[in-house]
Amino acid sequence: MDGTAVGEWVVGVDSGGSGLRIACAEAAGGRVVETESTREPVRTGPRGIEAGHLLERLLPSVDGFLGRHGGRMVAVAVGAAGMATLGDELRAEVPGALRQALGVRRLALAADAVTAYAGALGQRPGAVVAGGTGLVALGTDLTGWRRADGWGHLLGDCGSGAWIGRAGLEAALRAHDGRRGGSRALLAAAEQRFGPAAGLPGALYPRTDRPAVLASFAPEVARCAEEGDRVASRLLRQAAARIAESAAAVCPAAGVEGAARVEVALTGGLFRLGDPLLVPLEEELAAQLPHARRAAAAGDPLAGAVALAAALAAGTLRLPEDPRLLYVPEH
Amino acid sequence: MDGTAVGEWVVGVDSGGSGLRIACAEAAGGRVVETESTREPVRTGPRGIEAGHLLERLLPSVDGFLGRHGGRMVAVAVGAAGMATLGDELRAEVPGALRQALGVRRLALAADAVTAYAGALGQRPGAVVAGGTGLVALGTDLTGWRRADGWGHLLGDCGSGAWIGRAGLEAALRAHDGRRGGSRALLAAAEQRFGPAAGLPGALYPRTDRPAVLASFAPEVARCAEEGDRVASRLLRQAAARIAESAAAVCPAAGVEGAARVEVALTGGLFRLGDPLLVPLEEELAAQLPHARRAAAAGDPLAGAVALAAALAAGTLRLPEDPRLLYVPEH
Repeated sequence: MDGTAVGEWVVGVDSGGSGLRIACAEAAGGRVVETESTREPVRTGPRGIEAGHLLERLLPSVDGFLGRHGGRMVAVAVGAAGMATLGDELRAEVPGALRQALGVRRLALAADAVTAYAGALGQRPGAVVAGGTGLVALGTDLTGWRRADGWGHLLGDCGSGAWIGRAGLEAALRAHDGRRGGSRALLAAAEQRFGPAAGLPGALYPRTDRPAVLASFAPEVARCAEEGDRVASRLLRQAAARIAESAAAVCPAAGVEGAARVEVALTGGLFRLGDPLLVPLEEELAAQLPHARRAAAAGDPLAGAVALAAALAAGTLRLPEDPRLLYVPEH
Repeated sequence: MDGTAVGEWVVGVDSGGSGLRIACAEAAGGRVVETESTREPVRTGPRGIEAGHLLERLLPSVDGFLGRHGGRMVAVAVGAAGMATLGDELRAEVPGALRQALGVRRLALAADAVTAYAGALGQRPGAVVAGGTGLVALGTDLTGWRRADGWGHLLGDCGSGAWIGRAGLEAALRAHDGRRGGSRALLAAAEQRFGPAAGLPGALYPRTDRPAVLASFAPEVARCAEEGDRVASRLLRQAAARIAESAAAVCPAAGVEGAARVEVALTGGLFRLGDPLLVPLEEELAAQLPHARRAAAAGDPLAGAVALAAALAAGTLRLPEDPRLLYVPEH
C-alpha cells in the first residue's frame, strides 16, 4: 500500500526551451493517462521563469483532465530548465497558487537535470548524463546531489551537440586553410549546409541561437565518422571522453545502501547520434567509471516529473531535497 | 633615388576595434613625423565600414599636418579591420574622395592583417601571425597571399587570447566540478576576477563582447603557468601548437627569390603574455616551420600602413595586390 487511492491523480510537467509538456497520471503507480504538449516555451522575465505564464497553461490543462476523468489531483512535480538559477518566482508563487486552485499540497519544483535523472534511473543511486545542445551530469548517493558541467557552450558543455558541431566546423575550416587537423569531408559537409566557408562567420555570429546552430552540425560529424573520416571519428572519441569525465565526477562510489554497483545512464537527443559516439562512449564509461553499471534510461524528463509526483503522492520520495535542484515545500 | 622629394609626405592609417590611428611621415624613407590617435572606432553601418566617418577624421588631420609642415601628401595607405568583408564602401568611395580633397593619386586599402604583415616583415616574403583577442596568420611569396584562421572565437582563432582565456575558464570549472583536467589555481583566479563560479555564465553570456571577456583571462593563465600550474602550462603549450599550425599553413616554401630561408614573425598583444607562451611557441615554430627564420617584428600595423604608403610613393610596392586584402586602385 502506498497511500494513494482510485480517482487520485498526479501531474508531471517538463518545461524547457523547446516548449511545455504536461502529463496526468494515476497517483498509484504513475501510469500516464494523458499527455499534452505545446511548442511555446514558458516565458522568462526579469524575475526569472514566469510563474503566471506557467500556471495559465497548467491549470486549464489539469481542470480539463479532471473534468473528463473525475477524482482529484494529489501531487504536482514541475521540472524546468533554469530552475536552479531562474526559479525564484516559481518557488515563491507556484506552491500557494496550486494549493489554492487545485487543493494540491504535495509539490516538487525540480531542475530539468533532476527530472532527467528521475526519468532515467528513477530513485536509484547513480549518475545520469543529459545531453543535447548542452550537456550536464547529475549524480546522487541519495543523501545529496553532485552536478558537473552544464556551463554553456563557451565555458563547457563538453561533449555536447554544440561542442561536437563546433569542433567539426573548426576541422572544416582547418581543411579550408590548409592547417593540420583538417577534414575535407567535414569541409564539404559544412559548405553544403552553410554555403562557402568564407560566409560561415557571417552565418553564425549574428545569430542569437549560436549553440543550436553549432549543434545542428553534430549529425554531419557523426555521418562523416560513419563514412570513415578519421578527423570526425577522433572528435567523437574526444567528446566521449569529455562526457565520461562529467559522469565520473558526479557518480557516487559503489556500496551505496550496500549495492555492489551504482548505475550510470544517458538521456537526451545527443545520444541519438548513434554508434560513432556511442561505441567510444561505452569504452570511456567502462574505463572511467569501472564501478558503475550501464543502465538504459527508463524514460524521459517528463516521465521523471511524473515519477517524482507519484513518489510525493505515495510518500516515497527518496531523491534528496535541495533548495535549488529539488525543492519540496512543507505541506 | 626613389622618386620622392623634400616636402612630400605620406599618411598611414590603422583602423580597428580599439580606435583609429593616423601617422604622417616623410615620403622618402617613411620616417614618421606626427601620430594621432583616438579611441573611437570608425563606425560600421549596414554597408560596412563607413567611408564618411573615416574621411571626416582623416582629412582634417592631414590638413592640420600640411598646415604645420607645408608640402603635399603624395600617398595614403589605410589598413582596416574587416576590410576584406566590410570594405566595399571604403573601396567605392575613399579613392575618389582623397583624390578630390588632397590630390592624392597613390592609395592602398589594406586588410589589417596586411598592415600587420608590412609592419612586421616589411616587403620580405614569409609569414606573420597577428595575435590579440583573435588570431590570424598571413603569408606571401610576393606573388599572392595565403591566410589561415581569423575565423572568430567559436570557429577558430586557435591559440588567441580568447582561446587561451576560454580554455583557462573551462579548466577552472573542471576543478569546481571535480572533473579531471581541472586546476585549483585557475579556479581561484577565475573566482577572484569574476566572483563565485556559479555566477560565471551570468557574467559572460549576456555580454556582447564575449571574446574580449574571455581574452581578459588569458594573462591569468600565463601567470598561473609562471607560478608552476601544470594545467595552465599545458594549455599554453597547446595554444603555441595551434599558433604555429596557422603560421605553417601560410608560410611560403624556402627558396623564394633564391633566399635560403623565409621569415616568420609574431605581432600583437597576445605575445606580451611572455615566456609561458613564447617558450613553447619558439619550439613549435622550429618544429613546424623548420625552413623559416624567426624574425622580430620591426613595427606595428600603423608602421606597416606607413611602409605601404611610402612604397606606393616611391613606386616600390612589392607586396602582392589583391582585391580584398591589398586593394590599389589605378591612378
